[in-house]
Amino acid sequence: MSHVPSPSYSVTIRAEIENRIGMFARIATAISSVGGDLGSVDIVRVEKGKIVRDITVDTRDEEHEKLILKSIKEVPGVKVLRMMDRTFFAHQGGKIEIHNRIPLRDRNDLSKAYTPGVARVCMEIHEHRDRVYRYTIKGNSVAIVSDGTAVLGLGDIGPEAALPVMEGKAMIFKEFAGIDAFPIVLATKEVDEIVSTVKNLSPAFGGINLEDISAPRCFAIESALKQILDLPVMHDDQHGTAVVVLAALINVSRLLNKDIRRFRVVIVGAGAAGSATAMILSDYGIKDIVVCDRTGTLYQGRKHGMDPYKRKLAKATNPRKVKGGISDAMKGANVFVGLAAPNLITTGDIMRMAADPVVFTLANPDPEIAPEDALPLVRVLATGRSDYPNQINNMFSFPGIFRGLLDVRAKGVNNEVKFAAARAIAFSVKDDELHEDYIVPSIFDKRVTVSVAHAVAEAARKTGLARIKSAEGRG
Amino acid sequence: MSHVPSPSYSVTIRAEIENRIGMFARIATAISSVGGDLGSVDIVRVEKGKIVRDITVDTRDEEHEKLILKSIKEVPGVKVLRMMDRTFFAHQGGKIEIHNRIPLRDRNDLSKAYTPGVARVCMEIHEHRDRVYRYTIKGNSVAIVSDGTAVLGLGDIGPEAALPVMEGKAMIFKEFAGIDAFPIVLATKEVDEIVSTVKNLSPAFGGINLEDISAPRCFAIESALKQILDLPVMHDDQHGTAVVVLAALINVSRLLNKDIRRFRVVIVGAGAAGSATAMILSDYGIKDIVVCDRTGTLYQGRKHGMDPYKRKLAKATNPRKVKGGISDAMKGANVFVGLAAPNLITTGDIMRMAADPVVFTLANPDPEIAPEDALPLVRVLATGRSDYPNQINNMFSFPGIFRGLLDVRAKGVNNEVKFAAARAIAFSVKDDELHEDYIVPSIFDKRVTVSVAHAVAEAARKTGLARIKSAEGRG
Repeated sequence: MSHVPSPSYSVTIRAEIENRIGMFARIATAISSVGGDLGSVDIVRVEKGKIVRDITVDTRDEEHEKLILKSIKEVPGVKVLRMMDRTFFAHQGGKIEIHNRIPLRDRNDLSKAYTPGVARVCMEIHEHRDRVYRYTIKGNSVAIVSDGTAVLGLGDIGPEAALPVMEGKAMIFKEFAGIDAFPIVLATKEVDEIVSTVKNLSPAFGGINLEDISAPRCFAIESALKQILDLPVMHDDQHGTAVVVLAALINVSRLLNKDIRRFRVVIVGAGAAGSATAMILSDYGIKDIVVCDRTGTLYQGRKHGMDPYKRKLAKATNPRKVKGGISDAMKGANVFVGLAAPNLITTGDIMRMAADPVVFTLANPDPEIAPEDALPLVRVLATGRSDYPNQINNMFSFPGIFRGLLDVRAKGVNNEVKFAAARAIAFSVKDDELHEDYIVPSIFDKRVTVSVAHAVAEAARKTGLARIKSAEGRG
Repeated sequence: MSHVPSPSYSVTIRAEIENRIGMFARIATAISSVGGDLGSVDIVRVEKGKIVRDITVDTRDEEHEKLILKSIKEVPGVKVLRMMDRTFFAHQGGKIEIHNRIPLRDRNDLSKAYTPGVARVCMEIHEHRDRVYRYTIKGNSVAIVSDGTAVLGLGDIGPEAALPVMEGKAMIFKEFAGIDAFPIVLATKEVDEIVSTVKNLSPAFGGINLEDISAPRCFAIESALKQILDLPVMHDDQHGTAVVVLAALINVSRLLNKDIRRFRVVIVGAGAAGSATAMILSDYGIKDIVVCDRTGTLYQGRKHGMDPYKRKLAKATNPRKVKGGISDAMKGANVFVGLAAPNLITTGDIMRMAADPVVFTLANPDPEIAPEDALPLVRVLATGRSDYPNQINNMFSFPGIFRGLLDVRAKGVNNEVKFAAARAIAFSVKDDELHEDYIVPSIFDKRVTVSVAHAVAEAARKTGLARIKSAEGRG
């Protein structure tokens, strides 16, 4: 629930208005008096003594929408004809479509793109299977695969309801990295079925982006697919987030001029994002990491609420064997990373941290502690939201990572690739730009994606993941 | 192998030529002297005393290409820099791509298309599942699914090699029917795995087009999916072809002024296309159909080379219990439909047919009898090729059928839909246009797709397949 009117809750009201001077001012007043934010105003048509206008208003939520509508209706001489929710309108008919890259106007075109000419291309690929990357969409395509079990903060809403998110993701892939991503939402929640389905549909894709699959199933699915497929498979909720957190911490270490490996880090949340973040930080060389889940701190030998993934995590982290709750873990910590749920820590917890506390409160939309409460106490604050500085957003990572992997037709993805991506994101912020409020770049800076892609391609080449040295470009 | 130079075998030769009068004429002569068909000629650059040109030539095949190249190289003062195959060039990077239907320029756009705005659209679909058709690509999308086991005339070439064909199909869907079709090529040939994979990936699609799956596996896969899914599932090699053959026969019956149900029909081929064609003609009311496979005519009680699908076919056809080979079946037949392999019938077979023989020799690229041999003996000839009149091509059927089904969000597909499509194709040819050489319309006449779509939507409404009455249009 937003507290200020937002374009994500924008409505267009079509109203028939008596055509007299001052009428529109009254409507504008009616809107602002109840806190609506007036946007564009278009004339639809002018009739005898009347004018029909489309009035766009940013609102807070559905209640607010009704209040604004009521307020407009109460203006004498105004008749509301219809109301359109602009977000729903934007999604109507779907947000992506297929485009033909070459013309299909006549028999000549058809004989090249389809029969009989296509047969030669088929046989070329039949004889040299890797040429599928050159002559088909595979070289530029990613499957966005979800079973709809952990969608945004909405939980298990099923494949159909997850589809708008996957289409949005496909849009980001296209806009930021020129990648042709297609959403595949699955009518099954069985781990084995998901694995075999993705394996079976993989030949047309150059990469697999797993998305919004609940933990711990996501770990089993990802690791099985990585074993089976000679393609990059990446669960974005895990590694997309982990890479950006690492990037932000690299920049915190630059800012504070302190070796990142000497940070004491507390991670709250042992789901997809929390686990992967703990693992990447550990693999990057940070030794003192304490992960907390609902049961408390994770440590080797803990009896309750364990599974094979948590046992692995407990083994890789918590060298001091800290036991207890979040507050116990926070004592003397340099960095807090929240990837769990709203309101899990207090100002008291932050005050328990070491000097220059760094707080990443990333639960979305409502973070582990209200940013307003944390801000006065911390050296650096980061959130998942766009209305505070330092937005930790995996839009920094996944488009560039997949772009780089596709460019070299990568056989997989490894830690070096993720480290390279994190460094590229981090060093998009120059030394003289670094600041407590600027540890990550702007999400609309497409140069970030380009440098991530270059760094990833380079890392893939160096570590033997690359099938070719550099991108061939499309026809 | 084509006997005339064709644009499906077109090459562009980049040559550095001494810049003297008469040089290009010599090159043109060199090309034509070996039978090459000169196309466009572009200037790439002019250097001191030299000119670099791109010369496009239609050739017959790879041998011919080499011959032409050699002939050009022999012209004094010409240096060939490189040669590019235009068909391969057309396929480079794939033939389709994803396009965003709404902009994603800034935070406002992002907050509508993606988080946080998308959450409301997700919840709307979660609460009213059918709205997935309105707010996602599902309402306009088709999965083109193939396991690559029966691709064109090339056989079992595997999923990667099949992909260029599926992309070509996707292009036709888009160009002719505005449908967003995505190619899914499968890394499995197991019937059960294919069924479960397609079931699992179905939620994002409004229809499933099965393609180039070998018989008899295709029958089992299609019928299982039709049972499981509340979506139209159609194996195009079966029904796409069957619908067009029915359309052509409807027009033959109009042309000859004879009741279609009284035709004696011989079908050679009991694979995907042959079986489905026999079934649709039988269901449409044609009583005397004899199907031949490699073993001979199909009849009830035949012992050799039977399977459950052939038993069903034998039961539905051959009321006179004709035994023997193709020649026995042809005696007194009105219509021959070849959906099998090259050179299976002779002029003698045609001479055994009743008066006004109708011969559809559809094996591609090499038909059951050479059209030149059949032409003098028949009343109506149809082939699968574009270089003779009456090209039987399922481009008439599948785009319009799926368009109509998507427009009403159909739950499936039935015979009435296919009959309606066949009639719409047939009656695209007006009474006064009907002619022995014009029993099917032009494949580039997009009005055919529109009338097929309307007829299909109407049939779907009448038979209870439609979720909505008419298309909503996209946002």
